[in-house]
Amino acid sequence: MLFEFIGYLAGICTAVCFMPQTIKTLRTRDVKSLSLTSYIIYNLGIFSWTLYGLHLKSVQMVLFNSISLIFSLSILYMIIKYKNKKAN
Amino acid sequence: MLFEFIGYLAGICTAVCFMPQTIKTLRTRDVKSLSLTSYIIYNLGIFSWTLYGLHLKSVQMVLFNSISLIFSLSILYMIIKYKNKKAN
Repeated sequence: MLFEFIGYLAGICTAVCFMPQTIKTLRTRDVKSLSLTSYIIYNLGIFSWTLYGLHLKSVQMVLFNSISLIFSLSILYMIIKYKNKKAN
Repeated sequence: MLFEFIGYLAGICTAVCFMPQTIKTLRTRDVKSLSLTSYIIYNLGIFSWTLYGLHLKSVQMVLFNSISLIFSLSILYMIIKYKNKKAN
């Protein structure tokens, strides 16, 4: 029961963790301190987890990782888009 | 076989993805565009995955998430430490 809770906590946290980062970057358009390489690897990882979840027919894995992918892809897109924008 | 590869790719990517971010932040000490809230939630998530992995006795889960935790905790520490540093 406790570990079931911890498992769900883990899944929810890693699903929504980059929502605040997405909102912050959307607002400020400042990507200067964000690592492009990190977000490329992170997106590849989350995409692979989603595929692996589909293979395992795990609804939770697919759901949590798909949510995570929305934010990580948004951040990656903004890093590429705003990369050359001068800092304010 | 293919999906086993995808599973390992996923684990390795999410384990090391924030290494480049850690190196970048160590070098620049610039944390202005990083979201503190995101890294708090991310660390809580990864810590919970590690606990859940211990519960499941999954060596891979514990290993991959512990590696991830090294980088995510380092970034969290630097965000707090350099938060009030003026941008160059």
